[in-house]
Amino acid sequence: MNYTEKELLEKANQPSADALELHPFYRGKIEMVPKCCIRELNDFAIWYTPGVAAPCKDIHQNPERVFDHCAKGNLIAVVSDGSRVLGLGDIGPAAGLPVMEGKAILFKYLGGVDAVPLCINAHTTEEIVSFVKMIQPTFGGINLEDIANPKCFTILDTLREEAEIPVWHDDQQGTAAVTVAGLINALKIVNKPIEKVKIGMLGAGAANQRIAIMLAKAGANPDLIFMCNSKGVIYAGREDIKDPYLKAIAEMTNAEKRKGGPETAFEGVDVMLALSSPGPDTVKPAWIQSMAKDPIVFVCANPVPEIWPWEAKKAGARIVATGRSDFPNQVNNSLGFPGIFRGTLDVRASTITDEMCIAAARELAKVAEDNGLNEDKLIPTMNEWEVFPREAVAVGQMAIQQGIAQIKLTPEQAFETAERQIKRARSEMQMRQNEGFVKLP
Amino acid sequence: MNYTEKELLEKANQPSADALELHPFYRGKIEMVPKCCIRELNDFAIWYTPGVAAPCKDIHQNPERVFDHCAKGNLIAVVSDGSRVLGLGDIGPAAGLPVMEGKAILFKYLGGVDAVPLCINAHTTEEIVSFVKMIQPTFGGINLEDIANPKCFTILDTLREEAEIPVWHDDQQGTAAVTVAGLINALKIVNKPIEKVKIGMLGAGAANQRIAIMLAKAGANPDLIFMCNSKGVIYAGREDIKDPYLKAIAEMTNAEKRKGGPETAFEGVDVMLALSSPGPDTVKPAWIQSMAKDPIVFVCANPVPEIWPWEAKKAGARIVATGRSDFPNQVNNSLGFPGIFRGTLDVRASTITDEMCIAAARELAKVAEDNGLNEDKLIPTMNEWEVFPREAVAVGQMAIQQGIAQIKLTPEQAFETAERQIKRARSEMQMRQNEGFVKLP
Repeated sequence: MNYTEKELLEKANQPSADALELHPFYRGKIEMVPKCCIRELNDFAIWYTPGVAAPCKDIHQNPERVFDHCAKGNLIAVVSDGSRVLGLGDIGPAAGLPVMEGKAILFKYLGGVDAVPLCINAHTTEEIVSFVKMIQPTFGGINLEDIANPKCFTILDTLREEAEIPVWHDDQQGTAAVTVAGLINALKIVNKPIEKVKIGMLGAGAANQRIAIMLAKAGANPDLIFMCNSKGVIYAGREDIKDPYLKAIAEMTNAEKRKGGPETAFEGVDVMLALSSPGPDTVKPAWIQSMAKDPIVFVCANPVPEIWPWEAKKAGARIVATGRSDFPNQVNNSLGFPGIFRGTLDVRASTITDEMCIAAARELAKVAEDNGLNEDKLIPTMNEWEVFPREAVAVGQMAIQQGIAQIKLTPEQAFETAERQIKRARSEMQMRQNEGFVKLP
Repeated sequence: MNYTEKELLEKANQPSADALELHPFYRGKIEMVPKCCIRELNDFAIWYTPGVAAPCKDIHQNPERVFDHCAKGNLIAVVSDGSRVLGLGDIGPAAGLPVMEGKAILFKYLGGVDAVPLCINAHTTEEIVSFVKMIQPTFGGINLEDIANPKCFTILDTLREEAEIPVWHDDQQGTAAVTVAGLINALKIVNKPIEKVKIGMLGAGAANQRIAIMLAKAGANPDLIFMCNSKGVIYAGREDIKDPYLKAIAEMTNAEKRKGGPETAFEGVDVMLALSSPGPDTVKPAWIQSMAKDPIVFVCANPVPEIWPWEAKKAGARIVATGRSDFPNQVNNSLGFPGIFRGTLDVRASTITDEMCIAAARELAKVAEDNGLNEDKLIPTMNEWEVFPREAVAVGQMAIQQGIAQIKLTPEQAFETAERQIKRARSEMQMRQNEGFVKLP
């Protein structure tokens, strides 16, 4: 665990070096293949003209049958304008494409979900909303990705209201679901009830805003949440806050009306949730020292956490989570979206509610607990295969309970459905590699 | 050959019956899979964060490298608003989806091209043009499909002018290329030079309009072309013709200023090109009887040709071609677009010119000739595998010659490149079926 900073940076740079070499080796990460049989060329008389006219007419008369005749029910779009890609900022749609293709293969490999990356030349809220509405006939869901704050809020809210299919923004709901899962388990370890904990949040971006909202819905008391942006703690009436979304957060949180620099947000609190700027000096040891007993510290900036985990521990942190796979307790979005969409699509839910995300978070937490919870094992890893079908079940059952699912599955059916599709995706990938259709570098 | 009408209808209905049963069996025809290796979950550190940031930055600094790092160079979109689907009319985007998914698998299986069906809620010329411009960063080309006339002309022309990537409308250029190929060979058989033949055209839709333009560029004399719509032969100054595209055709053709019903278009002509309404009584035997010696009759309406082939022969036709696979000489679009896009993408051409389409048509004609041309074998079938790489070579070389290709390949390199990708698509499909990933019904 005790790497030097130099070693850590070298380690952190290896994937970049590999990525620059291997992306051109494959010329992209996704391809489209038939999922129907092609026994001989005559089969195209079924799949194309003249046979295909029959399913077309059927859908024209019975619109819901598009889910029977087309790929829609398992097909989503990963939509981005490239305006806030990873930590790189507004690099534009083409430069964001490698991320969206990567997302697409995560969707398939972990969730069995077919995902099409769509990086678009569309930048205003209105353009992006209208684009998503245009592609609705083709897709069963939309994953918004890497869209700048604050337009991402309006886009998501508008589309959740007006779209016919589920629309979700992974940087908000996905990050929130996985973070809440980690926090649920951290609180189990320190034995504090969520209703009573004080939570200091560093960073007031899309993710932390949605986390605050989801925590409140998951039982936390928003009065006891203290969020700070670069100018300090947020409170109702702070004059420089103009953005209506952030204003709403300010009104909902910080009942004590704390005012001051970021350090103010952490005095006596039980939990620190930092989703802010890369460290390692963004979070000061003194802030952790000022926290209540058994500090829970999430420092999730990438590639370098706001404080190195061992420095956080030295300052008294009991539990530390980061965004990195090479430290314990990785808060990894990839644990969320594949299972959540799997569950959503399998019951054909009309939207993805916060309650569905919380159900996923609780199940994710439960998987870790079932596999042996401890301070260094708060959250499952992607290797814990059952995470994804179990989340899918939890999400789907919540959608059914909320009355927004068009397909009713029992938990057993839901598990079987999810498991079958995920296993197929994984074993097909294995086979395509074994047979040389995907060459190894 | 001598089926009764009842037998023919039964035969024609079999693919529809199969399609209604098999589309729901597979729930759509396309799926997205990774084309890069996933040896273990750690590979996602290369394909997604943190490694993926390096290709993103590289593209941000060197925009052309998107072709190295992303799937763009082999990825096209099949875009339709569903306003003129097959012969079904304006059935809307969702009901058009089975056709676009079918097109996508034809692109992959015959051309090795990855194609994403995008059926969109966008109906005006402006909306569709703006949609295509929005998705440009993701795709290497656009196939417009089943968009109503006359907006399809403006959309195509605008996008050929303003888009950065090749945009093509298969119902215009694709149909024209394959029809021209068939006609070139028919003229070889009857030994008439294209410059001198008179051509009567039944139907003034998108396809026939583009065929007239392409024939003129391929050497036919437009003075000797007579096109008629439902109201009769088109001539310069005909007052009911308001559409500027059709007006231009009227001015270019019919130097004799023939006027009158459709029969007028065929008196003494060498060739009949009917792309109009389903028969079997749309074309009258008397029209064929009025043609010059050795009548060449293309009756391409689907599912039933404008006149049954044996009736056309009885009326004196020397050569008959239709749109159906169960008669000889099928004028089949699927012989065009997969090879033409393969060639376009492989040399990274900036557009698809009419000259590239004509090059494809000539090569298609040559394949039939090389395999033994006769009156019942004007045009290759999809089974003649070499059609597609040979067209790709012809198209790519023409693009290079026209100075619009960013990649220079020799004909040998072009053939090898095309062949490798097409063979991979076919053998992968075979293997996925053999291994049970695509189940047989």
